[in-house]
Amino acid sequence: MAYGLDNLPYASVVGTDGRRRAVVRFGDDVLDLTPLDSTLFADGTLDAFLGAGRQAWADVRGRAQETIEAGDTALTPLTTVRPVLGFAVADYVDFYASIHHATNAGRIFRPHGDALAPNWTVVPVGYHGRAGTVVASGTPVVRPTGQLDATTFAPTRALDFEAELGFVVGTPSTGAVGVADADEHVFGVCLLDDWSARDVQRFETQPLGPFLGKSFATSVSPWITPLAALQDARFPSVQTPAPADHLLDTGRHRLGIELTVRVNDTVLCRSSTTDLHWTYAQFVAHLTSNGAPLRTGDLLGSGTVSGPEPGSLGCLLEMTRNGAETVSLDDGGVRTWLEDGDEVVITGSAGPITLGEVRGRVAAG
Amino acid sequence: MAYGLDNLPYASVVGTDGRRRAVVRFGDDVLDLTPLDSTLFADGTLDAFLGAGRQAWADVRGRAQETIEAGDTALTPLTTVRPVLGFAVADYVDFYASIHHATNAGRIFRPHGDALAPNWTVVPVGYHGRAGTVVASGTPVVRPTGQLDATTFAPTRALDFEAELGFVVGTPSTGAVGVADADEHVFGVCLLDDWSARDVQRFETQPLGPFLGKSFATSVSPWITPLAALQDARFPSVQTPAPADHLLDTGRHRLGIELTVRVNDTVLCRSSTTDLHWTYAQFVAHLTSNGAPLRTGDLLGSGTVSGPEPGSLGCLLEMTRNGAETVSLDDGGVRTWLEDGDEVVITGSAGPITLGEVRGRVAAG
Repeated sequence: MAYGLDNLPYASVVGTDGRRRAVVRFGDDVLDLTPLDSTLFADGTLDAFLGAGRQAWADVRGRAQETIEAGDTALTPLTTVRPVLGFAVADYVDFYASIHHATNAGRIFRPHGDALAPNWTVVPVGYHGRAGTVVASGTPVVRPTGQLDATTFAPTRALDFEAELGFVVGTPSTGAVGVADADEHVFGVCLLDDWSARDVQRFETQPLGPFLGKSFATSVSPWITPLAALQDARFPSVQTPAPADHLLDTGRHRLGIELTVRVNDTVLCRSSTTDLHWTYAQFVAHLTSNGAPLRTGDLLGSGTVSGPEPGSLGCLLEMTRNGAETVSLDDGGVRTWLEDGDEVVITGSAGPITLGEVRGRVAAG
Repeated sequence: MAYGLDNLPYASVVGTDGRRRAVVRFGDDVLDLTPLDSTLFADGTLDAFLGAGRQAWADVRGRAQETIEAGDTALTPLTTVRPVLGFAVADYVDFYASIHHATNAGRIFRPHGDALAPNWTVVPVGYHGRAGTVVASGTPVVRPTGQLDATTFAPTRALDFEAELGFVVGTPSTGAVGVADADEHVFGVCLLDDWSARDVQRFETQPLGPFLGKSFATSVSPWITPLAALQDARFPSVQTPAPADHLLDTGRHRLGIELTVRVNDTVLCRSSTTDLHWTYAQFVAHLTSNGAPLRTGDLLGSGTVSGPEPGSLGCLLEMTRNGAETVSLDDGGVRTWLEDGDEVVITGSAGPITLGEVRGRVAAG
């Protein structure tokens, strides 16, 4: 999977001189964006660029493509820089947009109730997470300690990953943003691993939702692929039953991103965002329907991307039916939950466009 | 209630020249803090000062007191400046620390279950809110539109306030912060109104908790009273049953702040934070127990401060038993929920120390 001219994902990198620069990636090199716009990229982050809006995004992308094609600019080898989180996360919201994941999780967490609450097909259900613990790929994930039940405070015994797609907001908004206007505000996508301590989550979650079972770490790929690179991976929404009227999505906001999850090099899941019930345009429309503004740097997670097949489940909770079964690794190991030292790598692609990876290794708590 | 030398709450204000300055309030005047430390207050916000830690807080407070006592510095009349939000909200977390509120709300939202979930007395239950919609006192609160049930998308018909105390984090942390170390990190308190659309909240809340029913606005008083001013308002915790071991609080972290809620000048509630089951030190210890860092500007809400008496209920949900009864205003009006034009003012004090007010008027949606 190549990082070609039609891709050019964005990140910040730290060079050997310790300086931070905003770049796009081309093959195994990066192009420093500072010469393309000394104002937008002055601080080495993507923040000003993200907030500058769709025309600026198109201008910079065009200039980056021209610069690389012209071949008269020195590219920097990726091996000499370290990609870091390119933007300041404003609010982090995690949705729950896969009907397969929501149904499976509902059956596990609420065995005596309906798997899906009545709201699930009406609006995209979501919650606010902890922006301060969003970390870049490669950051070790320390096994969190937590309240596992009424009498046990201990390192989690049910550490899980969740394979998600993240959406990065660029242009801020005031007032409600309609589904049709979402592309004015959403800059691009990253890969996201919403690490979860299932025992902590189970004990804490009523009535106010997930909290410390999630807030210890959320890993994202440093490379943000602009929506502009995903034109061939956009499809109409196919949503039954129809959502609330103001959320009807007649655009091409369903993305075809294929995700692969590996634990210690064993592929445990292949799923696709084409199976998501809700689109990112509906996330934006719902989130702002009460008048809440979007801010540059808002990060919207899709929720676990699971499909209908056994091999397309995006977290161990579903794969092992909450620890009742095991999964086998190629090295002979078996898992119900993640063990210390395990490394989870989520990769993503859309045809020839690669989204890179988000990677994290579990460290002892 | 005077703003005396033993009080000196902090805010940012915008002057007639349009410039933003960090100040403390003394009586009906403000003292510009810039001359006291040109580095910490260079940008007119409290951010650098909050992050500078407890010794810096004590130093600046001492110098402000000396400067005012010396009387040789011109104070600026409050009438010539406009107080604004003095700090950038990092993550906003709302707790649920009043057993009276949690019990009343539990009976209303879950009539067929236990009012309190098994977690409630073990850990302080809370959730992450939307930092981007925390606004300063006086900002109009536009009635939010939302999904009121499966088929109705309309302006909320059940708009409510919640009288809370907010805690502002100064010193950031890495790793777990124990109960005994909370005062190293928490700078001070503000008044907080966690506006709520109860119909939206009810429909959306399962299984991931409150979301758009809260995220349209959270109002805070601009004046942050430092914990250093509240030495006489600190009491030992009295907590039965005992919490999880790591949350045992043997310090003086229970605050005696008296809150008064007025709607259109009618007092609807007088409650006290002495009635809260959980302390702010326990909030901090719980929030960081999974390893999540605190950031400068993290805002922790207490949850609705309700007492055991009918006149001490901190929101209309409780006062009207979810709209089944009405409350009477002095002007002859009756309310189940807030109407357009209604103004809610929450004031707070601890003996001679006033916390000022948080004020918001409902505008039509």
